[in-house]
Amino acid sequence: MNVAALVAYDGTAFAGFQRQSPDKGPTVQGAIEQAIQRIAGVATTIEGAGRTDSGVHASGQVISFQTSARLTPPDWQRALNALLPREIAVRAARAVDDGFRARHSALARGYRYRVLCDATRDPLRERYAWRVSHWLDVPVMREAARSLLGEHDFAAFGSSPHDRRDDGFRGPTVRTLLIAECDQRITCASPPAAEPAVDPVGEAVEVEFRFTANAFLSGMVRRLVGTLALVGAGKLTVAHFQAILAARDKAHPGAAAPACGLCLTHVAYPPGSITW
Amino acid sequence: MNVAALVAYDGTAFAGFQRQSPDKGPTVQGAIEQAIQRIAGVATTIEGAGRTDSGVHASGQVISFQTSARLTPPDWQRALNALLPREIAVRAARAVDDGFRARHSALARGYRYRVLCDATRDPLRERYAWRVSHWLDVPVMREAARSLLGEHDFAAFGSSPHDRRDDGFRGPTVRTLLIAECDQRITCASPPAAEPAVDPVGEAVEVEFRFTANAFLSGMVRRLVGTLALVGAGKLTVAHFQAILAARDKAHPGAAAPACGLCLTHVAYPPGSITW
Repeated sequence: MNVAALVAYDGTAFAGFQRQSPDKGPTVQGAIEQAIQRIAGVATTIEGAGRTDSGVHASGQVISFQTSARLTPPDWQRALNALLPREIAVRAARAVDDGFRARHSALARGYRYRVLCDATRDPLRERYAWRVSHWLDVPVMREAARSLLGEHDFAAFGSSPHDRRDDGFRGPTVRTLLIAECDQRITCASPPAAEPAVDPVGEAVEVEFRFTANAFLSGMVRRLVGTLALVGAGKLTVAHFQAILAARDKAHPGAAAPACGLCLTHVAYPPGSITW
Repeated sequence: MNVAALVAYDGTAFAGFQRQSPDKGPTVQGAIEQAIQRIAGVATTIEGAGRTDSGVHASGQVISFQTSARLTPPDWQRALNALLPREIAVRAARAVDDGFRARHSALARGYRYRVLCDATRDPLRERYAWRVSHWLDVPVMREAARSLLGEHDFAAFGSSPHDRRDDGFRGPTVRTLLIAECDQRITCASPPAAEPAVDPVGEAVEVEFRFTANAFLSGMVRRLVGTLALVGAGKLTVAHFQAILAARDKAHPGAAAPACGLCLTHVAYPPGSITW
């Protein structure tokens, strides 16, 4: 049976998704493959839709693997959740066509990136957000982010695993961005509380970026956010940001934003191939 | 100088706020006192407004301590944040009147408790919420919670550190609840996103309780939430919940909800004594 599973993880303690030599630390792929081996009795290799970096989280990673074990998909979900460390959970499991591959069948990946604007450390929020000490201008970051929509050569914001190959008239760093959004994140009660929640030092602003593309270059979302944060802080204009994109040159002032703010939220497949 | 500080912490790895013998694990008080001693050069005891249990978080804990070190409150904040582990942060520091005591001057404490209704483990949300596998009826829990408002003997939901003493005609387990709310927690973007965030397995419902009282009995919020969750699951009626309160007897089906969902959010002091 070919099994696909929707997987969530807190990436804080992992050296990324992809299995590596054990001295580099535990990986999400390694932990899942170990659990599958305990269940099925044989070593099994999984494929993941997104190769998230060290420290990056996922709420909607997709994996697939072939198995001859006689378990139904709900059995796989229960058995894996019983064995996996608490930082990793299988949110759903499905039997899929033999041709389905979590990575190679994927049409698009979606990531979110959270930024917390707060002058002071905040232990309850910094696990899943990049804290910056200054205010960020959300509308101007949104304008800059939207100028990324469509097909572009993103060489300024990342490198391709196939950099040495030539794909013909498209450069190997060309990707198509389908969603590029930036919003202030607001949490409210339903119905609105009569007594507003008290925050003694004022509400810190949380900013959320969302990007969906056919595929991303290595480090691309974090480099985009790092550079957009310069736009939001007034250190780069939108026109300058667009010129950086057009120049296709990594020599620009934007640095990669830290891993903790990034989360792989969804992966899209051809209609009919999988529903959760 | 008498210094008061607003403190936030991720309580996951701590054996509670209050200093204990070292074999019971690290405490928030112990970590802060150690940092103060490194700064001031002398052992210093702090007082905390709320004695949060092992695993309980705080976004608005208040501490106070006397010091002869010649540091301004902003210096104290910077120095402590440089030395404290990343799970603890000083959000603000103020010089206060000599008579101010974080615990004994406090008029009221506010806690929130988050519950995640989700049939499947969710590593990115379970650090700060109690996950239950079933749906909870928010309006009926709100109705039951509001019946707690005002002065009651909460013996059914906790014990007093002074249980052996008699305060006269009021029992030692009498407390006054000022806020008792229950809402569904909703996170939205501002402005509303054109593309809604995709959650492939459907949005899990997050429920937030908020309680403010002059003081709480030991374990009271967690016992209240554990019992209110039975009301929300249809296993207790609101009338039964009210009868449990009136009976002042801990022999009832509600168990204490786990520590991870609880957070001390604010402490109130007499007007003019402190502002953050």
